[in-house]
Amino acid sequence: MSDERFSPENATFDEIRGLFRALPPADLESGTAAVSRETQLTKPSGSLGRLEELTRWLAAWQGKYPPTVEHPRICVFAANHGVTAKGVSAYPAEVTAQMVQNFISGGAAVNQLAQLFDADLRVYEMALDQPTADFTEEAAMETGDCAKAMAYGMMGVEPGIDLLCLGEMGIGNSTSAAAICHALYGGTAEDWTGPGTGVTGDAFSAKVKAVADGVALHKARTEDPLELFAAVGGLELAAIAGAVLAARMARVPVLLDGYACTAAAAVLHAADPRSIEHCQVAHCSAEPGHRLLLEKIGKEPILDLGMRLGEGSGAALAIGILKSAVACHTGMATFADAGVSGPA
Amino acid sequence: MSDERFSPENATFDEIRGLFRALPPADLESGTAAVSRETQLTKPSGSLGRLEELTRWLAAWQGKYPPTVEHPRICVFAANHGVTAKGVSAYPAEVTAQMVQNFISGGAAVNQLAQLFDADLRVYEMALDQPTADFTEEAAMETGDCAKAMAYGMMGVEPGIDLLCLGEMGIGNSTSAAAICHALYGGTAEDWTGPGTGVTGDAFSAKVKAVADGVALHKARTEDPLELFAAVGGLELAAIAGAVLAARMARVPVLLDGYACTAAAAVLHAADPRSIEHCQVAHCSAEPGHRLLLEKIGKEPILDLGMRLGEGSGAALAIGILKSAVACHTGMATFADAGVSGPA
Repeated sequence: MSDERFSPENATFDEIRGLFRALPPADLESGTAAVSRETQLTKPSGSLGRLEELTRWLAAWQGKYPPTVEHPRICVFAANHGVTAKGVSAYPAEVTAQMVQNFISGGAAVNQLAQLFDADLRVYEMALDQPTADFTEEAAMETGDCAKAMAYGMMGVEPGIDLLCLGEMGIGNSTSAAAICHALYGGTAEDWTGPGTGVTGDAFSAKVKAVADGVALHKARTEDPLELFAAVGGLELAAIAGAVLAARMARVPVLLDGYACTAAAAVLHAADPRSIEHCQVAHCSAEPGHRLLLEKIGKEPILDLGMRLGEGSGAALAIGILKSAVACHTGMATFADAGVSGPA
Repeated sequence: MSDERFSPENATFDEIRGLFRALPPADLESGTAAVSRETQLTKPSGSLGRLEELTRWLAAWQGKYPPTVEHPRICVFAANHGVTAKGVSAYPAEVTAQMVQNFISGGAAVNQLAQLFDADLRVYEMALDQPTADFTEEAAMETGDCAKAMAYGMMGVEPGIDLLCLGEMGIGNSTSAAAICHALYGGTAEDWTGPGTGVTGDAFSAKVKAVADGVALHKARTEDPLELFAAVGGLELAAIAGAVLAARMARVPVLLDGYACTAAAAVLHAADPRSIEHCQVAHCSAEPGHRLLLEKIGKEPILDLGMRLGEGSGAALAIGILKSAVACHTGMATFADAGVSGPA
């Protein structure tokens, strides 16, 4: 977003709320053009299943026909979480910075997938030496800092990209995701808490307790999703939410990744369900809360491969599915072109 | 297969049966090497889910480490079915030949996917002007012709390929697949019969009746899966089964496509369950019998996207998943390489 109102320095929740009032709708004409061509292609009607739906979705939210997946971008936002002080992760907080270096040197899973699918990978390091506050004791962020982090995430959306894949890296952020979901959707802290990077036993109990304690502490703020976000969210999650909004404004469809990434989008959904209509969830994570969350926001994942890595890896993997959908749609012959008989 | 005993001219079921006694086992050493490296890569253990399992499976059945997906081949076998005389399909039988021309001229879905994933697409036209007999009235094939079709399919496996994707084109073949499954696994004809290319109403009733009639007529032959295959199968389905066996002998892992393709492999599974251990099912078809069949043969599909096109399209789509698995496995840094801390 080049719109200066949303520079990180002066963003506010009021400005973010203004975006919800300006959400552009789907381009029904482009979506209809996609549906119309599908019926003419040399295959039984509907036989490419979800691929046909994805093509229509791309056209409608890119606002153009035919849709393209030629310039996908993967944005991975990285930040640290004060709640790691409660022993909620199997890995020390230093791993966030170490993994950022691994992204930069090309050694992570998402690097390999970005290369395979010819995607532009951008990694955003968000003040790793300044973690959010421990949300079991105080608000993770000031509201202004949360708004600024959202505005920072908006900068990941630049002219020329036709698909945005979002991902995160942040030791402790599945605890933050669980707190967001528990606050938004109720149930118990256990319902929303999973092993994350692999916690078990006492560490898992500590994680469940942190989620319960955090949500109890900030109960008064759960009525307003953005206020809740500041209370129990994280900088990288706020950046993801900002990127989702900026992509909507710029007519760039979004692939969400796993639990933490989808929890960030769920905050937007809670504020206005229309705000994530341009998003698909790339895969269903093995983190148990993710499937439950997908039901709450009404999204059907594209892939379901038991992955739980984060860092945008599931979203990157689904680029291949979207490229396939568009390749079939644009490259296939019609019944008329190919001289193939239609159904009797 | 260069083994001359299996040239199409002189193949017999006895020779096919000989192959079941000579099935090479998985290469456990290569599989173990894959598992060992996974634990060292910069991600929580197991966090790439199914991708990790697929890498191990590729290594074990390619019999080499590291595994590769550099030379995938897609074989699409096309044939015609006498049972179309019973009005079981939404499309006329001529469409088989028309679609073969469409494959040759590059206009089908599988062409686009082959190009996207850099796969070598081969189309095998099997005497389209000589359909099998109507299996509701007599055996679809002589046993010798079925064996020859299996041997013909074996020729799709040549040196240098590291993955084999199998697919079919044959108006009427979902009726044949339903008859195979109904005969092998019992239940009712309705359990195994679906809309195929899109039959409804009277045509669907005719399809169910053809399946029930065919299985009743050939009841005496269902004890021997190969005899059953000749009775209610098809030339392209026999070729697929032959290609599965040849791939096993040549240490080439196989991606099966949808219902018809998996039904062909199910014949082998019924003869000896070990014979399809080197196969993954690429996707779960929208054809309702496919999910039931996958339970019977104990295979978990990689993708589940509501596709029901056949022609190897689902198998081709899953090449991207296998390439992703191998790219992550071979390209990622280890904890030691990247200086990333392991779990606490």
